[in-house]
Amino acid sequence: MRLEDRARGFFAELQDTICDGLGQLEPRSRFHEDRWQYQPGPERPAAGGGTSRVLGGGAVFEKAAVNLADVSGELAGRLAERLGIPVQAFRATGLSVVVHPLSPMVPTAHMNLRFIQLPERGWFGGGADLTPYYLFEEDAVHFHRTWRDVCDTHAPDYHRRFKKWCDEYFYIAHRAEARGIGGIFFDDLAEDLERVFGFVQGVGRAFLAAYLPIVERRAGEPWWDREREWQLVRRGRYVEFNLVYDRGTLFGLDTGGRTESILMSLPPLVRWVYGHRPEPGSREEALLGVLQKPRDWI
Amino acid sequence: MRLEDRARGFFAELQDTICDGLGQLEPRSRFHEDRWQYQPGPERPAAGGGTSRVLGGGAVFEKAAVNLADVSGELAGRLAERLGIPVQAFRATGLSVVVHPLSPMVPTAHMNLRFIQLPERGWFGGGADLTPYYLFEEDAVHFHRTWRDVCDTHAPDYHRRFKKWCDEYFYIAHRAEARGIGGIFFDDLAEDLERVFGFVQGVGRAFLAAYLPIVERRAGEPWWDREREWQLVRRGRYVEFNLVYDRGTLFGLDTGGRTESILMSLPPLVRWVYGHRPEPGSREEALLGVLQKPRDWI
Repeated sequence: MRLEDRARGFFAELQDTICDGLGQLEPRSRFHEDRWQYQPGPERPAAGGGTSRVLGGGAVFEKAAVNLADVSGELAGRLAERLGIPVQAFRATGLSVVVHPLSPMVPTAHMNLRFIQLPERGWFGGGADLTPYYLFEEDAVHFHRTWRDVCDTHAPDYHRRFKKWCDEYFYIAHRAEARGIGGIFFDDLAEDLERVFGFVQGVGRAFLAAYLPIVERRAGEPWWDREREWQLVRRGRYVEFNLVYDRGTLFGLDTGGRTESILMSLPPLVRWVYGHRPEPGSREEALLGVLQKPRDWI
Repeated sequence: MRLEDRARGFFAELQDTICDGLGQLEPRSRFHEDRWQYQPGPERPAAGGGTSRVLGGGAVFEKAAVNLADVSGELAGRLAERLGIPVQAFRATGLSVVVHPLSPMVPTAHMNLRFIQLPERGWFGGGADLTPYYLFEEDAVHFHRTWRDVCDTHAPDYHRRFKKWCDEYFYIAHRAEARGIGGIFFDDLAEDLERVFGFVQGVGRAFLAAYLPIVERRAGEPWWDREREWQLVRRGRYVEFNLVYDRGTLFGLDTGGRTESILMSLPPLVRWVYGHRPEPGSREEALLGVLQKPRDWI
């Protein structure tokens, strides 16, 4: 079987595993599945299909979205220009996971794994990162340690490189702050693809171990309106990053991807407040300090 | 006095007029003023200042923002590249107005007027457009008629050109729908600048006449949770347009503009719902029909 089909098979299996794992922590709501398929048209250069699973209005997860996509078409227009490459066929298959918990004490988590095939070359990309609203150091350490362990099993320089890449990638220039406390990010892994596929599988299988213990630990922490407001304002930054900078989002929208599945990553409820600034000495301000200066957590 | 300074003077005066006019319809809240000034730095290629006036939490206006800016610096990096021009000095002075009413029955209004000066040439740009959540035909007709009358006083082809330009500009490609029901939009008006300045003044002075009668007419319409939910979902589209496509927003962020003043345009509270679709035959669906197919309202 071709690598792109094996990758797709793995992503499909992983979608089940992750939805099951998240579902076990959610007493009130369930994932709903949406299978979609489309043909290329004048407005839509790509053909493809996928399975979007979304859970909304949960007691633990206000929104969780796990999207499997397999799209092919032509890299053209604004995007080919942006990438500086000629128009050519592509196939992209991937899994993306975004979890927006209800409680501001539980961080938002994101993972994306993808395989892109052009006529001449293919590569893997992906990563996982955490966006807390309140900082619990042990959670940050646990999350980063999980990814370090996965990386170290596969190559000695992966963790150093991919942790740094993550800090650089999830940076909101116009706010001069990171989206969250990072994790790992990688792209263009095109050499020794079998080995890289092994690494990508390792990352995918570690997601629940990286995230669920944090959810369990924090779901019972108390919070009030003030914490909820802060979460809604911070979610605004999440939206700003995804719509202004995120390559995956812009790639998807530019290649005529399925809008609802691409924008599944956006939080359920968001607030923008002019000139919002946390009180000096507050926990909110402590979080900002960390976002303005990436740390080595381990 | 140089044209750019006269333009700035007019924008400053207009800021007072518009804040007064909006304020007279708002019983519960008031505009707060924020004067800002900054120096260029490594992260910030521009120097400048401005006056941001924001009203929040009103009974009629959930958020109204009127921002006067006068910024100069260097067009460089991502932006010069995008515009396909060499690095050069610029000065941009402008006024932007965004009004997000509390009631879903009252449309959001937006106006922007600006003068850009490069070493070799200067030009005016701007426009005004309306984003309803529920459609009232007489409001749409009134809004468009106001702009047609202003245009017709200045040049016979302005309205036809600028109405069309507006429909094309405020288009959310990934949703295949317009942001609202349009109005007028113009840019690069560089010839016969004195005459154009007269037109820009006409537009600015007509804003309250175009919008306030609609606010007065609709502020008393009843609405419930369902209408509010629809408004919050539609506001998500507003955010998508501004962050993914709007040139003014991206220009501002790219040139190191003041983030809080640029993103004042974002609505106060926003909801994203996966796969949201209005009921067949509903008023919400009727609005979508109009957004998918621009109309001649007059």
